[in-house]
Amino acid sequence: MSDIGGFIHDEIPSAEVDRIEAAYGPLTAAVRELIDATIRTTVSPEEAGLALAEVEAVVARLRKEQLPGPAGVRFNSEGRAWNWGNAAVGLRNAIAPPLDITHVRSGLAHATVDLGAAYEGPPGLVHGGVTAMLLDHLMGETAAASFTRITFTGTLTMVYRRGTPLGPLRLDARIDREEGRKVWVVASIGDAEGPTVEAEGVFIIPKWAVPE
Amino acid sequence: MSDIGGFIHDEIPSAEVDRIEAAYGPLTAAVRELIDATIRTTVSPEEAGLALAEVEAVVARLRKEQLPGPAGVRFNSEGRAWNWGNAAVGLRNAIAPPLDITHVRSGLAHATVDLGAAYEGPPGLVHGGVTAMLLDHLMGETAAASFTRITFTGTLTMVYRRGTPLGPLRLDARIDREEGRKVWVVASIGDAEGPTVEAEGVFIIPKWAVPE
Repeated sequence: MSDIGGFIHDEIPSAEVDRIEAAYGPLTAAVRELIDATIRTTVSPEEAGLALAEVEAVVARLRKEQLPGPAGVRFNSEGRAWNWGNAAVGLRNAIAPPLDITHVRSGLAHATVDLGAAYEGPPGLVHGGVTAMLLDHLMGETAAASFTRITFTGTLTMVYRRGTPLGPLRLDARIDREEGRKVWVVASIGDAEGPTVEAEGVFIIPKWAVPE
Repeated sequence: MSDIGGFIHDEIPSAEVDRIEAAYGPLTAAVRELIDATIRTTVSPEEAGLALAEVEAVVARLRKEQLPGPAGVRFNSEGRAWNWGNAAVGLRNAIAPPLDITHVRSGLAHATVDLGAAYEGPPGLVHGGVTAMLLDHLMGETAAASFTRITFTGTLTMVYRRGTPLGPLRLDARIDREEGRKVWVVASIGDAEGPTVEAEGVFIIPKWAVPE
C-alpha cells in the first residue's frame, strides 16, 4: 500500500472488493435499521438493556480485526476506487442515508434520498444541517467533473425556503462556471412540491492535484 | 398527548424520562460503536454475515413496539423537554456524534465533539457537510437564546479555511445582531491550531411562535 495525498493505493483485486461489498452492504443496511429502531422503539428499559448486551457482542465480533483508523479513500491498479467510510455515500457507513447519485454528464448531477427518523431536526422535518451535508456532498462530486479531478469545499451558501419534510427527496446540482482552480456549483434539494433549500458553493482544486 | 406546531405534549413524568434515558444512552453509545466497527472491521465476509443475523435479531427485538413515525420534540407539564431523535444532539440518535453544547449565556455558546471514522469525507478529514451540519445546529440553538424561542435556519454561509482533521474539535457561536424576527449568528469550528471553518447564518423566528 502507498499513500498519495491521503488517497491509498490498496492492491485488493476488484473481484475481492465486490465480494466484500456484497457482504457489507446488507450489514450496513441492517445497522441503519438499528439506528432507526433505537430512536423509535417503545420497549421497556429492561428490553433495551438486553439489546445493549447483544449490540456489544456484535461490536466485539467485528473489532477482532480492524483498521487502526478511518477507512480513507482507496484505489487499485484495475482503476477501481472505493470510499466505504464516506459520511454521505459510504457503502459501509450507516450514517450515510445513503445519497444515490446519478452523474448525467460532467458537471451535471442529481440524486435521490429517503430520510427517516434519524435525520430529524424540527418535528417531522429534516435537520437543516443534514440538508447542508447532502447538498455539500452532491455539489463536491459535481465540481469533480465525473471524478476527473479532486475538489475541496471553499465556500458554501444555503438559502432555506421552507422546511424540508422527512421522506423521499430529490437533489440537483450543476457547475455554473469555472475560473482557474475555482469551480462554482449551484444546487437544490426539495420534495414533490419543489425546492426547499437552494445552495451555491465554490469548490477548490488543490494545487497538488493540478497537473504541471 | 397534544401537538403544538409539531411539538408534542407527552405526559411522561420526568422520573420516567430519566429512567428511559439511563437505559437508552448506553444502547445508543453501543450503536455508535457498531457504526464505527462496521466501517473499520477487516473480518471476513462470512463473519460479516454472522454479524448481520445478530443485528437483525436486535432490530426485531426493538421493533416489537415502536412509534409510528419520527420521535419529534416532546415536553411534559413539569417543564422537561426531550428531542431524542435529533440528528445532531439526540440522546437516542446514533448518527448524532453527539455535539456537547454549553450555553454560557443567552446568545453565546460553545461545544465540543470528537469525530471518528463515520464522519470522514476526504481521507483523514471531516466531511465538509458534517462541519456544516454541526455548525448549523449550534448556531440554531444559539439563536434560540437559551431556548426562550424557536428559530429555523434562514440562510447559512460557510467559509472553509482548511481541512478539518478527524478527532477532538471545538465550536463557538454567538448572536451578532437581531432585527424583528431575524437573528444573525456567527460561528466557527476548529482544532487546537484554530478555526478550520467559519460560518454566518440568519435564523428566523416563525410568525406563529411570536407572542401577540
